[in-house]
This record gives sequence, C-alpha cells and structure tokens, in this order.
Amino acid sequence: MESRQPEEREKEKAEGGFLLPIRRLEMSDRSKGFIDLLGQLSPCSPLSDADFLARFAELASLGDDHVILVIEDPQSGRIVATGTVFVEKKFLRGCGKVGHIEDVVVDAAARGLHLGQRIVGRLVDHAKASGCYKVILDCTAELRAFYEKCGFEEKNVQMARYF
Amino acid sequence: MESRQPEEREKEKAEGGFLLPIRRLEMSDRSKGFIDLLGQLSPCSPLSDADFLARFAELASLGDDHVILVIEDPQSGRIVATGTVFVEKKFLRGCGKVGHIEDVVVDAAARGLHLGQRIVGRLVDHAKASGCYKVILDCTAELRAFYEKCGFEEKNVQMARYF
Repeated sequence: MESRQPEEREKEKAEGGFLLPIRRLEMSDRSKGFIDLLGQLSPCSPLSDADFLARFAELASLGDDHVILVIEDPQSGRIVATGTVFVEKKFLRGCGKVGHIEDVVVDAAARGLHLGQRIVGRLVDHAKASGCYKVILDCTAELRAFYEKCGFEEKNVQMARYF
Repeated sequence: MESRQPEEREKEKAEGGFLLPIRRLEMSDRSKGFIDLLGQLSPCSPLSDADFLARFAELASLGDDHVILVIEDPQSGRIVATGTVFVEKKFLRGCGKVGHIEDVVVDAAARGLHLGQRIVGRLVDHAKASGCYKVILDCTAELRAFYEKCGFEEKNVQMARYF
C-alpha cells in the first residue's frame, strides 16, 4: 500500500516535486473534517465521539478487508480527499474475491490536483494485492469519464431500493 | 428472516398451497449442487472440501452481516435458487449501513416459479431489518425489469476493472 507507483512519481514530477501523502484513516481525523468531507458526497448527520469511535473500531477490526484512505492537507490540517475499498469473499470463481470501492470524495476546494485519481489508484492497488479478480464501483453517469481515466469500464446497471 | 410475508402467502395460495422454503446456506449444500448453481452465473472452478469449508466458516463468522439464502428442491435434493446480502458499515448518513445483494441465481430448470423474486424479497427484508438505509445491486440491462418488479429502481452506472 505504501510504495510509490511509477505514475505517481510522474505526477509528482509534473506538480513540482510535491505530492500530498496518502494514508489510512486515523481516529484523530474526526477533528480534521473527515465527516464534513463525506458530507460533500452524502448527507452526514453529526456523530457523537462514541459513535465515531465505535464505527472506527468496528471497521478497523476488519483489517485489510476494509481500508479507508485519506489525504490530509498539511497546511490546513484538514482531510481533503478520501476513498474506501472493501473485499467481498465469494464462493464463485474458485472462492474468488471482489473489491468494492465506495465513498470517494475530494474537497471542492482541492479539485484539479488529481487527488481523486491517486486515491482511486491506491484503492485499486489494494484490491489487486488482496487477490481480488476485479474491483467495482457505482457512480453517476457524469463520473463515467473520470473512472474511465482510472482504468474502469462501464459494465452494468446499478439498482437501488431505499427504505 | 423466517416469518412469512403477506405477498409470500399470496404466492403460496396462487401456486396451490405449496412454497419451497427459503433457508440459510448449510455446509451440506456443497453436495447438493450449490457450486454448480453458482456456475450458471459466473465461472466456478472446482473447490476442494477444505476450500469450501474454510470460506463457509469465514463467511459464517460474519453472522447477520453476511447472509446466503438458498432454496432446496425436496424432490431432487438439489439447491435450485440462491442469493446473498451483506451489510456494509459506513460513516456517512450517521454511521449508516447499506445492504449489497450479490450472486442471485435460479436454476435454469426452475424458472417461472418466482423463486428469484422470493429470494430477493427475503434479502431486502434482511437488509431492512439490519437497519440499512438502502439496498443496492448491480445487474445487466436485461434484468432491470425483473428488479423493478422487486421494488428497485435504476440509480447509477456500475464500473468495473478486471485484473
């Protein structure tokens, strides 16, 4: 997860030798705007400390089967990008595994720095390293071109039922 | 999970008072054609007993967060329908949960008995009972109408990257 990819080194060069590091979510990211950032993707009601910590512990217990990556802006001390991948274990395809990418969001003020593409690249790398035979995600039609740049192709239709 | 829904009782009446029961996957279903049935959906290489049992135990340890339902035909002793739902835990939506439906397949020789619709109905019920705010799935465009009958609506685009 931590090794730099050739394309990352290329981007770093293009951006003047400085790339914000990607790391796993930490408990202290609650006070760095992590939940506010998710709120740019989907409604996020305020969470108590206890609720945040309980969910953090629950997800951390899944180890490498559930990984939340973040990018922190060292100047502002705020989380400016995040994305999640979890590994689903199946019986089909010889007990195959599938990576599911979820909740990718880049702060509106930090667009244009390829942060989304870098986060997605790392999530894909993690799915591959975990032995998944594919990695999938659902997105709006507007984001199709972005994910094509990340090496994805349109495959199916996502159906939803809300409660 | 086990209580009959009103629409199930309706179907039972329409089918002459007999509905094949839906139950959770059991270890012994390996010898009842469960993997062969999945092979009608996606390639399934043969599994050793050890591989099957290891994956079964791994998934069973997730409890109600990962449920595989099956329908067995008592006459043939074969599994004729299956479907899976797992519960994803998020931070957004106030530590919300999302149900993911996967690997729904009905034996080609058992179509037309509403087994798929019944399995999906139960998977949806489970997601709802687990506190999910929505349940989602990916399918081919041809299956859109089937899932609309199950109460789903088209929402997004599924993108995939194969390794």
